[in-house]
Amino acid sequence: MDDLLRQSVSTALQALLGDRVTDQLEIRKQHGAGFSYHPCQPPDWVVYPQTTEEIATIVRLCQEHQLPIIPFGAGTSLEGHILALKGGVCVDLRLMNQILEVDTANRCATVQAGVTRNQLDAWLEGSGFFFPIGPGVNATLGGMASTRASGTNAVRYGTMKDNVLSLKVVLPDGQVIKTGSKARKSSTGYDLTRLYIGSEGTLGILAELTLKLHSYPEAIYAAVCSFPDVKAAVNTAIQTVQAGVAIAKIELLDALMMQAVNRYSGLGYPEKPTLFLEFHGSPAEIEGQIQRVQAFASRFGGTDLIWEQEETARLKLWRARTDAAPAALAMVPGSSMMSTDVCVPISRLAQCIVDTQADLAETGLFAPILGHVGDGNFHLTIPIDPATPGQFEKAKALNERLVHRALALEGTCSGEHGIGVGKLAYLAQEHGEALGVMRAIKQALDPNNLMNPGKLLPPA
Amino acid sequence: MDDLLRQSVSTALQALLGDRVTDQLEIRKQHGAGFSYHPCQPPDWVVYPQTTEEIATIVRLCQEHQLPIIPFGAGTSLEGHILALKGGVCVDLRLMNQILEVDTANRCATVQAGVTRNQLDAWLEGSGFFFPIGPGVNATLGGMASTRASGTNAVRYGTMKDNVLSLKVVLPDGQVIKTGSKARKSSTGYDLTRLYIGSEGTLGILAELTLKLHSYPEAIYAAVCSFPDVKAAVNTAIQTVQAGVAIAKIELLDALMMQAVNRYSGLGYPEKPTLFLEFHGSPAEIEGQIQRVQAFASRFGGTDLIWEQEETARLKLWRARTDAAPAALAMVPGSSMMSTDVCVPISRLAQCIVDTQADLAETGLFAPILGHVGDGNFHLTIPIDPATPGQFEKAKALNERLVHRALALEGTCSGEHGIGVGKLAYLAQEHGEALGVMRAIKQALDPNNLMNPGKLLPPA
Repeated sequence: MDDLLRQSVSTALQALLGDRVTDQLEIRKQHGAGFSYHPCQPPDWVVYPQTTEEIATIVRLCQEHQLPIIPFGAGTSLEGHILALKGGVCVDLRLMNQILEVDTANRCATVQAGVTRNQLDAWLEGSGFFFPIGPGVNATLGGMASTRASGTNAVRYGTMKDNVLSLKVVLPDGQVIKTGSKARKSSTGYDLTRLYIGSEGTLGILAELTLKLHSYPEAIYAAVCSFPDVKAAVNTAIQTVQAGVAIAKIELLDALMMQAVNRYSGLGYPEKPTLFLEFHGSPAEIEGQIQRVQAFASRFGGTDLIWEQEETARLKLWRARTDAAPAALAMVPGSSMMSTDVCVPISRLAQCIVDTQADLAETGLFAPILGHVGDGNFHLTIPIDPATPGQFEKAKALNERLVHRALALEGTCSGEHGIGVGKLAYLAQEHGEALGVMRAIKQALDPNNLMNPGKLLPPA
Repeated sequence: MDDLLRQSVSTALQALLGDRVTDQLEIRKQHGAGFSYHPCQPPDWVVYPQTTEEIATIVRLCQEHQLPIIPFGAGTSLEGHILALKGGVCVDLRLMNQILEVDTANRCATVQAGVTRNQLDAWLEGSGFFFPIGPGVNATLGGMASTRASGTNAVRYGTMKDNVLSLKVVLPDGQVIKTGSKARKSSTGYDLTRLYIGSEGTLGILAELTLKLHSYPEAIYAAVCSFPDVKAAVNTAIQTVQAGVAIAKIELLDALMMQAVNRYSGLGYPEKPTLFLEFHGSPAEIEGQIQRVQAFASRFGGTDLIWEQEETARLKLWRARTDAAPAALAMVPGSSMMSTDVCVPISRLAQCIVDTQADLAETGLFAPILGHVGDGNFHLTIPIDPATPGQFEKAKALNERLVHRALALEGTCSGEHGIGVGKLAYLAQEHGEALGVMRAIKQALDPNNLMNPGKLLPPA
């Protein structure tokens, strides 16, 4: 970019945003990397709009100068979604943090895209309602929608695609549209809400979201159960899901991960493959569900379920699960994270995990397993130590084999983290000719390829 | 179309399909109208492919000759989706009626698009699983996906958009793509599954669907309860939904509709606004739910709930609901149906229905009400008598005012019937600038505008 253009854009952005624009290197660097191993690629500017209209003006300015636009939420992406591959303007939405309406009569809430899930949780506390989608970090709701995120509750409550009623979107040309409405269902036209959920900022910027709220359960029980081997734990999860038990969470930590959390959080759990479970409903419903899960667990050699109902005890019981990712990372000081994310049909999950563990053993890599096993989704959490040569390449090759394994089992390369730049290589194999349809949509809606360029779609 | 072209296309279709192609007027007429008031517009040919590859070849042939392509399921559309506005080839999918796989381990079934919901129901009987989406007629599953259909179970199980895992689609250029997979969740690329659900044949032809199956409930109870007025019935439904009672069905019939079903089916129900309910779960769960609904009903002056658990008695109790649409039509012999379909946020439903009844009274039209009130969705079922001049125009004007009322209440002009040609006039008001995005997608994927032209998108 020549100095004249740089100066002219800076001036225009300052005229619009005052001091809510910066080109300081330190801040740009903070915006050029997420929570993972992808090397930082800073944008040229970071801007902090406060309104949808400001976003629209920024986008029009970028079109005028043909500058890339990268939306930024909490920066918790794991696949390099926010790298400024070609420079440009990073649109940090942290000031778009207003909860605009909580409409309990219609069981929905409208928020600006920069509201975080913890912020919404806190707001809803005591209201009798909750929003069920919770990834492992305090992401923004806009970011969660952009990557079609899910987390531990998806087995019962679905993912972001199932929990958004309506969006306000700034299009690549600066027009603002509203998709959907507060009506619970509609069959009027193409489902733009779902098109934008999971579009990773490549078709526009999410400015507002209307989210479905759920009734806070009458009771919540947490439970934990350990198993002689991973296969037994996974088979218990499979049977639970196949039997249609309406479990709220069913999470696997393998022996290695249990070791990591014991050390990280000073816990004393058996270092064996363990299922962490959560049940929502009336006490009678939950007791019925616990009995059924206990029967499956016993069949596969699981221990008796230990369970807790009272909130403090529940949270303590689940502490190991909550701390899993940082605990794994802490095992290798100075490392950065690579997380695999395949998801397979539930009947293939045990096979996929067992084969992956055998493959992993051959590599000698340290890669504890964390799984949303009710969905058929699991992560290898691989701390990458920059000081260990060859480790990154080894991990990448392991992930590649894992993705091929999952696709062969009718699965997907990413259950919830998205594509970003980290999984571009697998998209052609996963989607085949359908990739052409995605490319045609991108070309039609963002003909200048300025919206988060280089993400989600591999080069043709 | 000149005779030479007509002859050449006929020859090519016969070469491909043998006797599975026809240009007989009677058959073409049967394919040019649905279940509603829209006047018949027959296609030039009707073809009956048996495989996805045959559909693809037909589509390529149509592209070569620039002929419109109209997919046809069971012909139960209410909004003129299957009118051959510009002639062309009607692709009747009735021979694509194979249930390809029922995968109970992964709780899904893969079917060809011409499989009807009754056919799938019969197949699943005794399997322990069911498919929850049931509109009032025996539609095909491909047609149901194309219009984003729902029906009585949507309040608990969602609509077609929530119950399809994956699609096989023939694109407008004859390429075949697969969207999604058997994995329960994925965040890899644009959500083409949801884009095609509700696209009304305008972006390609659905050839196969992989559907989510649900565990058959441990118990099912049906119940019925009548009210002094419509508002009381609707308020009971609103409270039930707002309280988060996981009710499976909650349907309203107004006094007029109860009169119609009594007469049509020889029943003796009180001719008062009535809620028909269904509960799924364990007997203990259901009894809890019934108690809660009973408390709401009593608060609004409802009668004691009458309920049945045993299947024959249940079906008998629900008979009135099942027969509602034909019963309304039978009140005016020789009439054809116009059905309104607005859906509003649940908190606005009572207001919307009460205002609509007042409006209706002024018109003097006969229009019994049937409502999926748990979703905020209701239908005026208006028999249009061709012998009564001005009736159609009156009904159309009534619907127009109803749509404006619903949109003003943050609702939608169609909850489940789709746009077809019948609701084109309301799309600009409902979607505003978002209509431009829909048009860009249509243009990108079907540049020659041959896929069901004139449907879903109003002329620019």
